[in-house]
Amino acid sequence: MPLLSHLSALPTLENDLALLETKLENSVVAKDPYLTEIAKHLITAGGKRVRPGFTIASSAIEQQDTIPVAVDVLMGGVAVELVHLGSLYHDDVMDEAEIRRNTPSVNAVWGNHTAILAGDFLLARASEIAASLGTEIAGLLARTIGELCEGQILELQSTFKPSRTEESYEQSIAGKTASLLSTACRIGGLTGGLERDTVDQLTDFGHSYGMAFQIVDDILDVVATEDQLGKPTGNDLIEGVYTLPVLLALESDLGSQLHDLLGKELDTKSRDRALGLIRSTDAVEKAFDRAQYWALKAKASLESLPPSPATNALFAATNHLLEQAHN
Amino acid sequence: MPLLSHLSALPTLENDLALLETKLENSVVAKDPYLTEIAKHLITAGGKRVRPGFTIASSAIEQQDTIPVAVDVLMGGVAVELVHLGSLYHDDVMDEAEIRRNTPSVNAVWGNHTAILAGDFLLARASEIAASLGTEIAGLLARTIGELCEGQILELQSTFKPSRTEESYEQSIAGKTASLLSTACRIGGLTGGLERDTVDQLTDFGHSYGMAFQIVDDILDVVATEDQLGKPTGNDLIEGVYTLPVLLALESDLGSQLHDLLGKELDTKSRDRALGLIRSTDAVEKAFDRAQYWALKAKASLESLPPSPATNALFAATNHLLEQAHN
Repeated sequence: MPLLSHLSALPTLENDLALLETKLENSVVAKDPYLTEIAKHLITAGGKRVRPGFTIASSAIEQQDTIPVAVDVLMGGVAVELVHLGSLYHDDVMDEAEIRRNTPSVNAVWGNHTAILAGDFLLARASEIAASLGTEIAGLLARTIGELCEGQILELQSTFKPSRTEESYEQSIAGKTASLLSTACRIGGLTGGLERDTVDQLTDFGHSYGMAFQIVDDILDVVATEDQLGKPTGNDLIEGVYTLPVLLALESDLGSQLHDLLGKELDTKSRDRALGLIRSTDAVEKAFDRAQYWALKAKASLESLPPSPATNALFAATNHLLEQAHN
Repeated sequence: MPLLSHLSALPTLENDLALLETKLENSVVAKDPYLTEIAKHLITAGGKRVRPGFTIASSAIEQQDTIPVAVDVLMGGVAVELVHLGSLYHDDVMDEAEIRRNTPSVNAVWGNHTAILAGDFLLARASEIAASLGTEIAGLLARTIGELCEGQILELQSTFKPSRTEESYEQSIAGKTASLLSTACRIGGLTGGLERDTVDQLTDFGHSYGMAFQIVDDILDVVATEDQLGKPTGNDLIEGVYTLPVLLALESDLGSQLHDLLGKELDTKSRDRALGLIRSTDAVEKAFDRAQYWALKAKASLESLPPSPATNALFAATNHLLEQAHN
């Protein structure tokens, strides 16, 4: 996850996200207070609400004046965030993560069984909200959850494989990251009542932004400090997830040295050696070029949209992403 | 799961279920052949398709003649079965089950990570199909998945607790079992284009049938042989799930002896002692009375419906359930 916040250029966003927060908490109330507590756990732990932010901004790209955000837009944002949270519940079980957002993870507190079921519960609530927004959004969100799973399974399939191709990497991040960001924007356009062409542009924007977002995230895993990341540098390497900078470094002069270190569990020393090798190639720069390619595509999608505070905020968020990877 | 098949009194069902089978397999095809294989694993392993059977029968209760089943009805059945299968993927991860339907479980073959994601994928495909059937069915299926999770979490919460109440037991089985059977029938009524009152009767029928179904299943866990069950007798006891016959036995004269054995992991000897104690009380008979109560309610829901081969089959299936527990 990139380090800084995103859509701060949109002046109304903070207020809208405050409204969203209440709806988000209410959306997971269950008959059983015990389940409610578990389902609220990660919501209460906070989060930047990146995806609902994109939903809200996308809905507003034709607005020149400050008008209250529509309830359907907010509920669309809630559905998207619930999908994200539900998948985090399952991620943490799979990664045996103890901490998430500076709070003990759901699996750490209540065990794996409960965390799996509570993740299912959040996904179900997301689908229920999507259904209340019409069949198009219900179908779209379900398809997106499927794509998320596809992307993650594709990634799992290639863990610890230095032979992973860039194509397979891009296919995987398209599913696991770009898909939900793209849907966040599309749902914003749809619930905002925008024209079909505009909705499609927003969808493309979200996809390209999501691709850039994940590549930047993967660059940061290699170049940022543990302090900046909130987890060890090279965490993906340790988990056997070979991302774009790694794959590009494998193609460089130092590729065979790096290759010798990969394909197996890494101790801290080997991880540091691998990180050193990657950093001394041009792989990070080349990965950054790729992020820039997607960022340019994202901005191109915005170009035909009317200039407005929200459109400007989406532009600014895209630029901001690249600045993060450059610092 | 009760031992024998269900709706065999409906002459067209076998044919309809053959059509369903193809649609079920097609419904989980993914871009990636690897994911497709994983998603098809339990489908290929077979299964009685109890829930889609109820969907199909419910859709047909006003038909006196044999007419081809509508595609929407079949797709409703597919959605319901995918929810069941997706939840089995997650159950097997949670129970660390190695075998399911005489085949190695998904987690045994591909590991827990993949099984969790593939379960999510099946649930997502179910939601996508539900969305194609309209917002009412999409919302209903999503709510049902939520209820499934609620029921299971409630059960988890009371594992190894002899203080579990009968009320909590009924609330749990209403969520984990009756909810999806009820929805299977409701979706049959809705996709079959039946009137609202009739749809509601079918929904009530499915709920009551589901309650009886689970109580019978729980009785069989105590009284059937390992051979009949395909798993050890008293498996629920071993897993700390104290079902109705156990809770009723705890209220009997032998309750305190039984209580001493419960609340902890059981070795085979203690399990056999506990089973012996339960069987020597009237708990099984009382549990059977409770199953009969629900079966009578189920049949009462059918009484105002027109006599037809499908209505008769639903009647017969309910009677059949009780016979199983009595043999």
